Formats: sequence, C-alpha cells, structure tokens
Amino acid sequence: MKLVIINGPNLNLLGSREKEVYGETSFDKYLLELKQKFDVELDYYQSNVEGELINYMQHVKCDGVILNAGGYTHTSVSIRDCVSAIETPVVEVHISNIAARESFRHDSLISPVCEGCIFGFGLKSYQLAIEFFISK
Amino acid sequence: MKLVIINGPNLNLLGSREKEVYGETSFDKYLLELKQKFDVELDYYQSNVEGELINYMQHVKCDGVILNAGGYTHTSVSIRDCVSAIETPVVEVHISNIAARESFRHDSLISPVCEGCIFGFGLKSYQLAIEFFISK
Amino acid sequence: MKLVIINGPNLNLLGSREKEVYGETSFDKYLLELKQKFDVELDYYQSNVEGELINYMQHVKCDGVILNAGGYTHTSVSIRDCVSAIETPVVEVHISNIAARESFRHDSLISPVCEGCIFGFGLKSYQLAIEFFISK
Amino acid sequence: MKLVIINGPNLNLLGSREKEVYGETSFDKYLLELKQKFDVELDYYQSNVEGELINYMQHVKCDGVILNAGGYTHTSVSIRDCVSAIETPVVEVHISNIAARESFRHDSLISPVCEGCIFGFGLKSYQLAIEFFISK
Amino acid sequence: MKLVIINGPNLNLLGSREKEVYGETSFDKYLLELKQKFDVELDYYQSNVEGELINYMQHVKCDGVILNAGGYTHTSVSIRDCVSAIETPVVEVHISNIAARESFRHDSLISPVCEGCIFGFGLKSYQLAIEFFISK
Amino acid sequence: MKLVIINGPNLNLLGSREKEVYGETSFDKYLLELKQKFDVELDYYQSNVEGELINYMQHVKCDGVILNAGGYTHTSVSIRDCVSAIETPVVEVHISNIAARESFRHDSLISPVCEGCIFGFGLKSYQLAIEFFISK
Amino acid sequence: MKLVIINGPNLNLLGSREKEVYGETSFDKYLLELKQKFDVELDYYQSNVEGELINYMQHVKCDGVILNAGGYTHTSVSIRDCVSAIETPVVEVHISNIAARESFRHDSLISPVCEGCIFGFGLKSYQLAIEFFISK
Amino acid sequence: MKLVIINGPNLNLLGSREKEVYGETSFDKYLLELKQKFDVELDYYQSNVEGELINYMQHVKCDGVILNAGGYTHTSVSIRDCVSAIETPVVEVHISNIAARESFRHDSLISPVCEGCIFGFGLKSYQLAIEFFISK
Amino acid sequence: MKLVIINGPNLNLLGSREKEVYGETSFDKYLLELKQKFDVELDYYQSNVEGELINYMQHVKCDGVILNAGGYTHTSVSIRDCVSAIETPVVEVHISNIAARESFRHDSLISPVCEGCIFGFGLKSYQLAIEFFISK
Amino acid sequence: MKLVIINGPNLNLLGSREKEVYGETSFDKYLLELKQKFDVELDYYQSNVEGELINYMQHVKCDGVILNAGGYTHTSVSIRDCVSAIETPVVEVHISNIAARESFRHDSLISPVCEGCIFGFGLKSYQLAIEFFISK
Amino acid sequence: MKLVIINGPNLNLLGSREKEVYGETSFDKYLLELKQKFDVELDYYQSNVEGELINYMQHVKCDGVILNAGGYTHTSVSIRDCVSAIETPVVEVHISNIAARESFRHDSLISPVCEGCIFGFGLKSYQLAIEFFISK
Amino acid sequence: MKLVIINGPNLNLLGSREKEVYGETSFDKYLLELKQKFDVELDYYQSNVEGELINYMQHVKCDGVILNAGGYTHTSVSIRDCVSAIETPVVEVHISNIAARESFRHDSLISPVCEGCIFGFGLKSYQLAIEFFISK
Repeated sequence: MKLVIINGPNLNLLGSREKEVYGETSFDKYLLELKQKFDVELDYYQSNVEGELINYMQHVKCDGVILNAGGYTHTSVSIRDCVSAIETPVVEVHISNIAARESFRHDSLISPVCEGCIFGFGLKSYQLAIEFFISK
Repeated sequence: MKLVIINGPNLNLLGSREKEVYGETSFDKYLLELKQKFDVELDYYQSNVEGELINYMQHVKCDGVILNAGGYTHTSVSIRDCVSAIETPVVEVHISNIAARESFRHDSLISPVCEGCIFGFGLKSYQLAIEFFISK
Repeated sequence: MKLVIINGPNLNLLGSREKEVYGETSFDKYLLELKQKFDVELDYYQSNVEGELINYMQHVKCDGVILNAGGYTHTSVSIRDCVSAIETPVVEVHISNIAARESFRHDSLISPVCEGCIFGFGLKSYQLAIEFFISK
Repeated sequence: MKLVIINGPNLNLLGSREKEVYGETSFDKYLLELKQKFDVELDYYQSNVEGELINYMQHVKCDGVILNAGGYTHTSVSIRDCVSAIETPVVEVHISNIAARESFRHDSLISPVCEGCIFGFGLKSYQLAIEFFISK
Repeated sequence: MKLVIINGPNLNLLGSREKEVYGETSFDKYLLELKQKFDVELDYYQSNVEGELINYMQHVKCDGVILNAGGYTHTSVSIRDCVSAIETPVVEVHISNIAARESFRHDSLISPVCEGCIFGFGLKSYQLAIEFFISK
Repeated sequence: MKLVIINGPNLNLLGSREKEVYGETSFDKYLLELKQKFDVELDYYQSNVEGELINYMQHVKCDGVILNAGGYTHTSVSIRDCVSAIETPVVEVHISNIAARESFRHDSLISPVCEGCIFGFGLKSYQLAIEFFISK
Repeated sequence: MKLVIINGPNLNLLGSREKEVYGETSFDKYLLELKQKFDVELDYYQSNVEGELINYMQHVKCDGVILNAGGYTHTSVSIRDCVSAIETPVVEVHISNIAARESFRHDSLISPVCEGCIFGFGLKSYQLAIEFFISK
Repeated sequence: MKLVIINGPNLNLLGSREKEVYGETSFDKYLLELKQKFDVELDYYQSNVEGELINYMQHVKCDGVILNAGGYTHTSVSIRDCVSAIETPVVEVHISNIAARESFRHDSLISPVCEGCIFGFGLKSYQLAIEFFISK
Repeated sequence: MKLVIINGPNLNLLGSREKEVYGETSFDKYLLELKQKFDVELDYYQSNVEGELINYMQHVKCDGVILNAGGYTHTSVSIRDCVSAIETPVVEVHISNIAARESFRHDSLISPVCEGCIFGFGLKSYQLAIEFFISK
Repeated sequence: MKLVIINGPNLNLLGSREKEVYGETSFDKYLLELKQKFDVELDYYQSNVEGELINYMQHVKCDGVILNAGGYTHTSVSIRDCVSAIETPVVEVHISNIAARESFRHDSLISPVCEGCIFGFGLKSYQLAIEFFISK
Repeated sequence: MKLVIINGPNLNLLGSREKEVYGETSFDKYLLELKQKFDVELDYYQSNVEGELINYMQHVKCDGVILNAGGYTHTSVSIRDCVSAIETPVVEVHISNIAARESFRHDSLISPVCEGCIFGFGLKSYQLAIEFFISK
Repeated sequence: MKLVIINGPNLNLLGSREKEVYGETSFDKYLLELKQKFDVELDYYQSNVEGELINYMQHVKCDGVILNAGGYTHTSVSIRDCVSAIETPVVEVHISNIAARESFRHDSLISPVCEGCIFGFGLKSYQLAIEFFISK
C-alpha cells in the first residue's frame, strides 16, 4: 500500500513558526515518525502554489491521498474539482480545529468530495488518516 | 483507560433502517468488535432525548468521550454547553460525510468545543476516535 | 387500517389555553369525534419531550402517522431524521396557518420528508389527513 | 354548494408531460372523477396568464376556491392581493411536495392569505380541499 | 429543420428605443438576415405577456427553441416550468451581457433547465444559437 | 397637455373591496373629480395582466404617465424595462404607505427608473402626480 | 394653516455645492418662492445635528411637518421615534430619487411612520407636500 | 406570594464547573440566601430536558416564573410557545451577559413573550427578578 | 453612593406622549419617587443629542450609570465606545420589551459593553438597576 | 485571424476522467477538429496554475481569446483583472451548464468583463465562440 | 499650506483612557509634535457631536482635511455626504487596525468618498496623512 | 534598514495598461524614484502566481514588507496565513481606493493581520508605507 501526504501553503513552516498554534515538530521529522510507525509506503509533497498541488494530485499513483490544503481549503474550487476528477480516495485533514477559528475557515470546499475529514488533533490528524487507509 | 461512546437520536436504528446510508451493522455488534480490537474499557450510551444525553455526559467518569450527537449536532446549544462544562476531552464523530449532505447539516454547533472531529468514514469514525485517545 | 396521531409540545393544552388561537375543543374530545366519524383504528400520543416523540415514532406499528410536531416543527433535525428512517408514511398537520405567523414558523424541517402537508384548517387538518390515508 | 378549481401555468399539461412527476391522469379526467364523487357543483378554470387568473378570481361567484397557482405561487404578489381582496375563502393546493423541491419553491406568497394549505398528495390534494369545504 | 425564436417583453422595441444599448437594427430586419443566412425554417414569436409566451411554447412544434425571455428571465418560475415540461430543446440567449448589468439581472431562473446559454454578443447571440442547432 | 393614469392588478376593485384599506371611492368616480379639477386631458387604463400594461405603455402618446403598478411593483423587471425604454416621463404612485406594510412591499423595482415617487396619500397620490406634471 | 419645513444635514449647502445633483437654487430663495405661491404660514428649520432636529420637532406647533432628514433618513431610529411620538402629521420628502442611488439610501427608517413620502422631484418635492397639506 | 425559579440545561453545574464564568456559588446555596432575604414562597426546578421544563411550567401554580432556559434560550420555539400559553407572568434571566458572548447567543426566542428580561448581573439577575415581582 | 440616570432621545416626552406605550408618569415625577425610595444620591441627565450624551458620560463622576440610550441604542457605535472608555460601570435599561418590537430594535450595540441589561419592566427597569448597584 | 483557446485547471483531464460529465473526447483531439473546420490560426494553452494563466494572457498576441477558466471562474479576481487589463476581446466558455450545478458555480467573476459568455453546449461551446470571432 | 485634523467622538480621551489600545500620548501633546515636525499650518477640531463635525467641516477653509470620525465612521451617512459636498480633499485615518476589530468596524461609510485611507499605524496614521498632503 | 515591496497579479502592467485607473508611470520607473528619495535598501518582487508570492515572502529577510496583493487581496486565505506566519511586519497598500470600487473589493482578507493599511493615494501609497517604516 502506498499513501501520499499532500500539504498546501505555509505548512512547510511547521515547527519553525507559530509554534503555539502548530507545535514544535517540523513536518519532515514527523514524517519520519510516521514512516517508522506504519508499514506503508509514504510519499510527501508540499507546495504553496494551488495549481502545483493540482498538477501533483492529477498524476500521483497511490492507494490514498491525505490532503491538508491549508488556506486553499476554503477558497479553491479547482482543488475540489481535482479531487472529484481523480479516482484515488482522498481524506482531508487539518492540524487545528478549523471550526473553532475565524468564520471564513469553517467551511471547506473540499470536504464534500473527500472520503472523510479529520481535524483538530494536531499532527495526529495525519496518523488517523493513515490508520483509516490501513483498515480499509 | 476508559472511554465512553455516546450516540444521539436515531442512531439506535443503525443496521435496521436506511441501510444504504448507514450500512447493515447494528451498533451493538460493532461495539463488540471495538471491544475485541482495543484494549480499553468501553462504555456505551444512546438516547433520543437531548437532555438525557446531557445528564449522562455531566456525570460520566472516563478518560474520553466519543460523541455522535446525531440530529442534535446542528441544533443543540445545550449539548455544546455541556461539552464545554465538563473536563473530559470529547471527540466528535459522524458516520456520514455531513459536508456532503443537506446544507443544514454542514455546521456543527459542537465541533468548536471538541478536541477534534472525524466524519465520513462510516462506523470507522468511532474506531479512529478510539485510536486518537489511545495514542494521547 | 390503523392510524396514529402524534402531537408535540403544548398541544396537550388545546381547549384550555389560548382559545382564540386554537379553539375551545380539547383534543381528547376531538379524538372521540374522529373515532366515531371514521372506521379506522386510531391511536394517540402526545409528549412535550422531543426525544420521546422520536422513541414513540420509532416503535409504533401502523399504516400511517399524522404528525403535528408543534414547536419542534421548526427546530428538530432529529424528528426529521426519524421520519426519514421509519417506513410508515407520515403526514404533517398544523392547526394554524403557519405561513401567516412569525417568520421563524414559516419553514418546517419536517415537511420535505413527509408524504404531504396540511395546515391552517384548525382541528380539521387532522381529519383531512385521515381522509387521505383512507383514500389511498 | 359551488366550488371552483383554478389551475395556474403549465397545469394544462397534466397527464401528457412529466408523467414521472405529475402522474398519467389528465386534469379533465380527474375532474370527472371528482364530480362523480362529490355532491357539489364544481367549476374549473385554467390559464397560463397571471392576470387572467386574477380576472377570473375577481368575478367568480362561489362558496370556495381551490387554487393551484403553479409557478406563480412563488412570485405573484398580485395573485396574493387578489386572494386578500375577494371574500370567497381560498384553499391553496399543490400536487407535489413543494418543500422537498428547489429552494425557490419553498415559500409561497399566497399561503399566508389562504384559509389553509394542502400539498404533496398528488391529485388527491384537490380532493382533500373539496372535503374541507363540504365539512365546513 | 425548423427552429423558433421566442422573444419576451420589450424586445419588440429593438431598433427603435434605447439604441445605445440594443443597437439600431429592428428584430424583423435581423430575422430576414438570419433567414437568408441559414438553411433552416425559422419562425418568430414575440409577446409582452408571460402566459402567452408559455401558451406558445407549449404548442409549438419544432426542433429547437431560441428563447430570450427578457425581463421574465429573472422572475418567471412559470416559464422555467414550461421549458422543463416540453421536450423540445431550448437555448437561452440575451443580447446584452446580463452579468455586467444590475445585480437583479445576474441570475436567470431559466438557464438551469436550458440546453445552454449564450449572452453578450448583441444580436449575434441568436445566430450562434442557430449554429448550435445546425451542428447538432 | 395629456396625462395617462395606468393602474395595475386589483386596482379595479377600489371602492368595492377592502374599503378599510383603500377607502370607499371607486377609481372611476375619483377620475371624474380629477378631470373636473385639472385642466389637462386625462386618460385611464387598468389591467390585471402584466404584459398588457406593457403593451399599453409602449404605445401610449402623452406628456406624462402616472403609474400604480400594484402588486407588479415589487416583482416586474419587465415593467421596469418598459419604463426605461419609453421616453415619456413616468411618476410612480401608491395609495397606501408601502414602507409601512409587509417587507416584500418595501422595495419597488420600478422607482429607480421613474422621475419620482409619491406614496401613502391615499387617492391624493394621483392628484399630486398631476400637479407635478402641470408645474413642470 | 401653518406648515414647517425641516431640513437635515448638508441641505444648507443647496445651491452652492454639488449643483449637478441638487440644482443651483439655494433653499432660502426657494422658500421665498414657496411663500409667494401658497397661502399658508411657512416656517423653516435646518440643522446638521440629529438631536437638534428632534428638539425642534418635539416642540414645534403647526398643522404639518415637511421633513427631509438628509443622511439621517437611513440611520436615525431616534428621528423615527420622534415622528411617531408627536401628533402633527409628517410628510417625508427627498430632492433626489433615493431609490436610484447607492443601496444604503434605498431604505428609509422614517417612511413607515410618516403620512406619506415624495421623492425624486427636485425642489418640487417640497411643493407637492405643501399641496397635500392644503388639500386635506 | 409564590414565585418559581426554573433553570434549564447545565445550570445544575453552577459552582462546580466553569467557575471563572459562573462564579463559585452553587445554586442550592444561593437559593437559601434568596429565601432568607425575601419574604416570598420560593420553589425551584431544574432540568436538562427541554420537554420536562415545559411539563413543569405548564402545571406550576404560582404568581410568577423566573426562567433561565440556558442553552434552550436560543433554540426552543417550544418553550416560547409554553410561556405564551400559560397565564403566569414570566421574567427571563441570564447569569452572563449573553450579548457579549458568541453570536448565536445574542437572540433569545423567549424574550419577546416574557414580561421582561434581566441579564449579565451574575446570580443577582435572579434577585432582581424577585424584586420586580414583589414590587408589582 | 452616587448614581446617575442618563436618558436618550425622546425620553423627555415620557408621560405626555404615547401613553399607551410608556405610561402616564413623567420621568421627573418618577425620579422623585426613586429619590424617596432609595438612600442614594441620584442625578439625572437627558439629551436628544448623541454627542451630548457622550460629553456628559465622559465627565460624570459617580459609582454607576443607568443608561437608556433610546433610539441610539441600536445605531450608536460612539456611545458604545464611550461606555467602553469610562471606568464607571454602566447598566443598560429599557422601558419596553425591545425584543418584542420591530426587528431593528432587537440588537443593542451597547449591551455587550455594559455590566448588564434590564428591559421590559416599564419604569421599574430603572428601579431594578438602582437595586443592583445598591446590592453590589 | 488568430485566436487563442485558454483552458484552466483540470481541463487537461478532458476525455480521460469524468467522462459522463465532459464526454470522451480529449481536448487535443477536439482541437484538431476545430483547426480543420475553421480557417483561422488557433493556439492553445492550458495550465492548472492561476498565475500562469495570467502570465500567458498578458503576453499573448491575437485577435481573440476563448477562455474557460475552470474552477478559477468563480474565485479569481486576478484573472478578471487580467481580462480587464488586456485589450484583446475575451469570450468566456464552459462545457457544462454551470447554472444547473452547485450554487457556488452559478456566479462567474469573469463574465462581467468578457465580451460575452457561452455555456452548456459541451465542447461545442468553444466552436460557437470561434464562430463569433469569425463573424465579427 | 493649511491642514486641519478633525477628530470624532471619544478621541478627546486619548492618552487618559484605554491606554492599552490607544497609547499613552494625549492628542494635544501629539499635535505639538506634529507642528514641530512639519512646516504646515495645522488646525485641530474635536467634537463628540456628529452634526458639529459636519458644521465645522462645511465651513473650514484649508488645503486638506485629515478625518478620524471615530465611531461615526461606520454609521454616518451624513458625514459621508458632507465629505462629498465639500471640495477640500479629505484623508481618512484611524489609529487602530479597524479590519482586525469587531465586524461592525470593518466597513467605513466614509472611505469611498475620501481621497484615501490610512489605518492601523497608531498616532502615526495622522503623520502619514500630513506627508501625503505635503507631497501632493 | 532594508524594505521589500511585493506586488501581486497584474501590477506588472502598471503604466502600460488602464492608464486612466493606474496612471502612466511604470512601477520600475517609480521604484527608481523611491530609491533616490529614501535612504533605505529597497528590494522589489512581483509575481502573478499566488504561491510564488508566498514562497518569496516566507524567505525574504528584511525589516519590513510593503504588500500590494492585487486581486489576491480579496480571495487569498493563504497569503493571509503567510503574513501571520512570518515575523517581519507587513504594511498593506493599494493604489486605488478599494472602498470606492466593486463590492467584492471592499473586504481585504489580508488587512486584519497587517500592521496597517494605506489605500487610495495612487503610487504614493507605497511612499507613505516607506515613511512609516523609517519613522518606526
């Protein structure tokens, strides 16, 4: 089984900025932990460019995508359309509890076309998504 | 570790009604599976009465609550207040992808005061919540 | 043929309070008239508790439910879910013309999942619902 | 007792178009059934023109009007004003369950000034309206 | 192949009023040009009366309708219902760019039930609609 | 100087229906009073049909139109377009104070394209409009 | 008969500023014309201070108030309350066609409690209001 | 004089939870203080169940009800209907300043049918309500 | 202890206008009653001018302000800012039940920055506010 | 004459994904057909990146742009600004009937600044746009 | 060059109240600094009364107005109208970042008619406005 | 001191397109002027790609960022998140008065997380931002 984690804009700053919100762990370090913990092939892609996220998602070959679209979550019809267009199942994750933040973060354009959604568990949101794919 | 699953209105019908939406497994049967799978004490409570859910949640002693408030998710300020008032961490789960259903199901009054939210994974949403509590 | 009339909150006060709105007939007395008039088995249930209405509706065995959910009409996703979940056809009735009252009474969460809706005819709304079931 | 059924735009197509929505019975044939079933004088008027419906309603002499204003239900302040202006009681009917269709069909401008409203029972909606007038 | 152009209210004034908006060509003159240009039978109907547009559309026999409903575009549920009810494919056209005008002209009630929509090309909008039908 | 008064739907009932709202004077009788009072040619047209009001207004030759569009005031983009299209100045009048009635009567689609608006003065609203045209 | 004209903020600039909108006549000069034209006692008050307009209106003794509240028209619950509280009839006037300007000028908080409303006729709006009081 | 205090959901937790919001006094202790301070008969009822609050309020015999409906304040048409239906005057109280909290707490469905409303004074809100009833 | 009552626009008319709404007592007379009843120094200020209310409130020295901002309640960000800026605690009062009146009176811009709010008790609302300050 | 077709995000998947929505033809194949059919120079550009679409459009030299901005249609102020800034005329096209899809697809930010708009005709929407440019 | 700074309600409290928001400098002291720093004539006016701000602004003779309308920013159509009416250019300033505060402070009625807007720089907002006028 | 100016989409067209809106000066030329005028190190970056603006801003080392996000101002949660994430202070500038343009340009997603905002001063908006950073 091969899974892909795709992170959207500003998530490359994890662990170095706004630590009170996102914690002190960089995603690279966390990725290592995930790889050790789970017996799956785990790829990772991050971009700040909306269209590059789409480019990547259109061509990736895997059994499941774990997508944290960051700020594009609430504004990108195009990423939504991409999730609809590909056949790979996609799980949406968020580190913070988006329902408890500013009102423009409450609605996700992407959720309705995903398999499911996990948010608010910090970096553990990714781990739970992996566990979902493993248990399928 | 002791966890409690609390199900709200109509979730007692799981497995016997609207099988195309909620699947064919009754929650009792699923609960057995969960108990076998995880090494935690697992209690279960279901009620169709909003206030009884509050009564139960106010008094339960445990390390974590897994709450599927059903139809009260979108209308109950009172359950939200109860989640805020108790000190036990609460994880919100939904079987279906509420973001992909009628618009009045898109907003949860309860999410902002929960630890996190998991929806759309069928009965596996509960399992992922348990895995979160175990991994804390 | 067996039909069940289910009345929601405050409808137990019919005939004794707000007579200018709801008339002077108590529902018990009106029920007797209905039983004499129609050759059907006619059961009756009233509760002020949202969840008890759900409890009753989930388990009742009959050929048709005539439901006046009172104030829950406009706020209860849970009763709506219950109407969707059971297989018995449900007809929604209201004594007053809810479209001519306060704006928060204009929308019924329950109508879309009912067989049909009858409102504004005073107590005769119930009678028309019975006539519908008889003529099916 | 004389009753009048007034049908608005496109209801002349009943039985010949969109049969999956409105059934296979033409209104003329249904009218015959109604006349045989009920001991009342029953007139019928249909027009696709908003103002002609008003013209007719202003001048008709009868004991009750059964009005299905079709698409004008949701847009015609003028028909509403006409219903308010005449002294004959008017009952609003709809064949389909308007609350379960597109959102612009949920509100009726006409309901608040009618005696009552019956919708969702197919052609039987008209029959229930007649039964209401007979039982007055 | 027979096509029918149906124009709604005030479009009979084309060429004689508000020339800065709609140009100097009368529709009659433009119709002649169209007939010369295309090898199809081309009928034309114009009315200022909403219901007469419906009357005509219900009974016309042709391979395609080109509909410019004018001011009724934004207010007529009844014309929409008529377009849905008939089996002839309908293409919606507008002379001006309705998206660039007052906000109440931005939404068309008719577009969702049409085959497609063409607007903003002046009188050429009609021509493009004919070309669509020819190329089917 | 020639002026034309155009009355929309249900205004033919003035003086015979809803006297508490619109007074006891029929419009015909009031028209006579106006003709005696003012030294202008005064024509009158009333129709319940939106499109007929447009037909008349498109072709009338006069120095000023006094328009009470009745219920179409709040719903007719087509009458608005007609007022815009003709060159004759139009004054909008209403008998009642539309700002003090139901909220759907607060906005007039027609006001923005009229010379001015007079409402709430009972039948005197028409008289004030005439006085405006005379004083131009 | 004594009438009072009350002008709100910035109307003291009439004739000297924004002449393209409000014309070249100062209100003082126009007032003289009105006094010559009509056989009524005519007082005038202008203030830019919302509360001073209220002070004046509360104490003025006359048979009718002609009120142009300027920018306070759309924001002043307090002037509205004052109009409601006094017994003198008040007619609202505006020089420009407020329905044709910015959307925040479309609603008047004052109209619903006035006898009637006249707008869009330039300075003639005041004259029409006087004619209304004279004809009472 | 007999007064009844009715507390809605989660108010049984007063003094033991969220002390920073609601203070450290339990309601039982506060009730004793009230009984000592005022020369009135004082009953108390608390429930987390919406319908039980209605049951109680329908049958209680007293000279005044002091109602803190908690989270149901903002969602319960049914409690509002009950307040309307009974003849006993009801005063609405809240411990916290609901206008200063989340936006969904700003509107109370119950206020419009109560005698008056007191909020933001901590537990003293109840005391002020008693003083109102005594001073009647 | 020194308290100050500040009344906003039109409250100087109490007892002489709209007696059916506000009663027959003038505020001066009521003030005398309050002074006799309570052992506190009691000052009074009324103005119809928003800014003068602010001027007064900025400079008053006392232990508590009882503020009825009248029509400015719903429109004055500036009075709100003043209440926030001063250190004296402010209690908001209203004579009528503002929640039961026109919708534009439902929201108070001032409530969120006040100590608490009391409305609907007629002139007794002021008395309850005094009792609150005394009991502090 | 040289025309340029610009396709936005996910339109590179045409013919290989979601065939039930967009048909089985790839855009490359369709482009060949267009080139054979029309005697114009026809360039093609596709990108999933919003800013690259802008880059291209700013610098392209041609007589007309045919733009299908895909998901950016509804969210991109920046593409709109680009269309406004360049002098080349732009025609907006969509393959599907966007008015008949999810509500967030109903409004196009781009339409108001385009020459015209064509949608709902499948791939023929592009062809009609070419025909428009040819006929200019 | 002569510039005028106009401050609205509560800005006279600068430096003495809410220091955490507005800093510890009084405006008088800051004004001195500005006068020393810039080689321009600098007048200052402050009032809590909306209409007095208008009075002043209508009559001031200068080359530029720097306006901080305080709480009237969000509610005063009348100040907006005054800014439009005078010919002197007006720059709007705010000490705090109004976009980061309560939602009712996000929109300024005054911005659209000002030369430009500067906010969020503390007292330096005024200085930047002066620099703008100097550099013109 | 080193400052960086970042310009978003279409601002590379300054001086060559839409000169009536943005003036005739290209930004390069203006940048030279700025460098001559101020004794600071001044870098410049422009991109039409949302994510590239984020890439640049994440890595730039300087004492202050002057950001004109162009069309992304109103749609980019991701740029907002980037501004929040970095520690460099950011000042938002706009050339035109965005409050006076189309309504979708009135709200900036970026303003609330910036140090301050300057708009409407043409290219001078940038200069004022520099003056702010110098005066810190």
